[in-house]
Amino acid sequence: MLTNPFYSQEVQGPFKTFPLGDFVLEEGGTLRGGYLAYATHGKLNKARDNAILIPSWYSGTSKVFEQCYIGKGRALDPARYFIICVNQIGNGVSSSPHNTAGNGGRGNFPHVRIGDDVRAQHKLVTELFGIERLALVMGGSMGAQQTYEWAVRYPDMVARAAPIAGTARNTPHDFLYTQSLMDAITSDPGWQKGWYGDNSEVREGLSRHALLWAVMGFSTEYFRQEEWRKLGFSSVQDFMTNFLEAYFCAMDPNDLLCMAWKWQRGDVSRHTGGDLKKALGRITAKTFVMPIDEDMFFPPRDCSAEQKLIKGSELRLLKSTCGHLVLTGFDQDFLKQVDLHLAELLAMPA
Amino acid sequence: MLTNPFYSQEVQGPFKTFPLGDFVLEEGGTLRGGYLAYATHGKLNKARDNAILIPSWYSGTSKVFEQCYIGKGRALDPARYFIICVNQIGNGVSSSPHNTAGNGGRGNFPHVRIGDDVRAQHKLVTELFGIERLALVMGGSMGAQQTYEWAVRYPDMVARAAPIAGTARNTPHDFLYTQSLMDAITSDPGWQKGWYGDNSEVREGLSRHALLWAVMGFSTEYFRQEEWRKLGFSSVQDFMTNFLEAYFCAMDPNDLLCMAWKWQRGDVSRHTGGDLKKALGRITAKTFVMPIDEDMFFPPRDCSAEQKLIKGSELRLLKSTCGHLVLTGFDQDFLKQVDLHLAELLAMPA
Repeated sequence: MLTNPFYSQEVQGPFKTFPLGDFVLEEGGTLRGGYLAYATHGKLNKARDNAILIPSWYSGTSKVFEQCYIGKGRALDPARYFIICVNQIGNGVSSSPHNTAGNGGRGNFPHVRIGDDVRAQHKLVTELFGIERLALVMGGSMGAQQTYEWAVRYPDMVARAAPIAGTARNTPHDFLYTQSLMDAITSDPGWQKGWYGDNSEVREGLSRHALLWAVMGFSTEYFRQEEWRKLGFSSVQDFMTNFLEAYFCAMDPNDLLCMAWKWQRGDVSRHTGGDLKKALGRITAKTFVMPIDEDMFFPPRDCSAEQKLIKGSELRLLKSTCGHLVLTGFDQDFLKQVDLHLAELLAMPA
Repeated sequence: MLTNPFYSQEVQGPFKTFPLGDFVLEEGGTLRGGYLAYATHGKLNKARDNAILIPSWYSGTSKVFEQCYIGKGRALDPARYFIICVNQIGNGVSSSPHNTAGNGGRGNFPHVRIGDDVRAQHKLVTELFGIERLALVMGGSMGAQQTYEWAVRYPDMVARAAPIAGTARNTPHDFLYTQSLMDAITSDPGWQKGWYGDNSEVREGLSRHALLWAVMGFSTEYFRQEEWRKLGFSSVQDFMTNFLEAYFCAMDPNDLLCMAWKWQRGDVSRHTGGDLKKALGRITAKTFVMPIDEDMFFPPRDCSAEQKLIKGSELRLLKSTCGHLVLTGFDQDFLKQVDLHLAELLAMPA
């Protein structure tokens, strides 16, 4: 077990934890004394039908939704909805390699699947809150993977779904990109097969990992137009050092690897023997599929191909030269687009 | 000095060498006893006006043009043209880190600029062949960088220019991508700041470098459609191990780093104090700018923006789901497109 202030209540909170007990994972491991960390906004109504679930993306936590996506008068309005922002397993706030004690933690943390997250979230939603149906499940990137998994695994429980900038079945190209992220970390001799003493020992690997996010996480146009200036940086190097590298170097390498392994294997067709059409055919949620036009690894055409397999779904293209990482909430125009689509989706009977 | 059979006459030849003497480089270093390796096809006519120059791309050599681009009845017809395929400095066949003897070789090989290549090629073309004007300069990727440099530096000598899948001024995004390629190699402890005993000591770094080419060198669609099957591979892993990794692991790491550093800094506006419009305004060659529609790091919009600054130029978009690396010649449909455009360009008065 390691202590990392980045994942503390002070930085990521306020959050609560929900115990999972000894949670058996799809790949055969067991999370002993596992838990989900979550934050809620608003109140669950008496009918228990105003709940929205938002799982987190790679490297993200529940905090970003509080900061950038939820607000009075917005689509995700806590005056109207009971919004549960849940941290995926391995993200550093819920049960993760770095915060798991004993020989089963750190470099030995077991493999986790998107399905494990969704089963754990199902326990949270049903056992703790007694919710039978979610008004909306939504999420970006790996959050979209969990959203799809929810809609396919528990179709009766998902009234509406909004997978943003992510896929139901990870693509082969995306698998390779994720592998390059993992290799950037594991190739650092300081990683020591996961048994480093502190994440700063893997700083070079984490920095290379940050560079790969610069290459694929934004867009060619983002750098051409020097959009990073809007965030207050004076050069690309300044942006790299004090934004992307600073962001990832604060994180735990094993936690990132846990999420990356999971990301690589996101696939709802595991429920239907590899038949994606059949899997997506199970979805009864009113679904808006929302890719980002400049996304380099979840390109609109991949998302659109999946959307066509979902009954009554709509493709809602989000526009941003910032590419995939605009999800992290630094662009107000993008957030407005998301709000408009979500408001429309939430207004639909489902 | 290291021996590497990949760069031998048996594999890359037949090629000849042209001595550069002690060639002073733009960054201040000197290539002592430097040379360019080149291959020619066809005969120079009496008027010396049928010469075509083709500089090489990153990791490529003159051989690929003989194998895939030149042929009887094709646009680059040796029965009609005198075609000079020249190896860029650092590519392993011309003067390069691995084949340079003494303390100035290997890890100490000096920095080389695109402008150095073009000045060296100018010596070859004028001093050895007595050519005053080239009917065409063309090249892909870093070959496009050299093509632009020719057309800006020696406008009177270039009748026609065909920069394919490359830019006149490298983009900031491309700089970052190239940096990730370099980091993949230099992060391997076996690299030893360039003083490894054999390139196999850097095999892990070269493999990570190959993975980044998989991520950016093809396209998301290439993997989605499993286009690698056409090359005889049975899985993505088979394709990685026996195509991309095999390709790059045969190469010298310092040679790749020399080219990557040069690639990062390709910029014709160095001639005009950073004014790209002014630099491209110098071009008098009839120019076809030929991006590849699915290219992930030289996207058509970047190439098109430059094309608009070249008088009388035309944008000729090449279509291929294979992305950037289709340049390497494995797709007949792509080669046919290139042929058609080049034939049209060569038929134009210039």
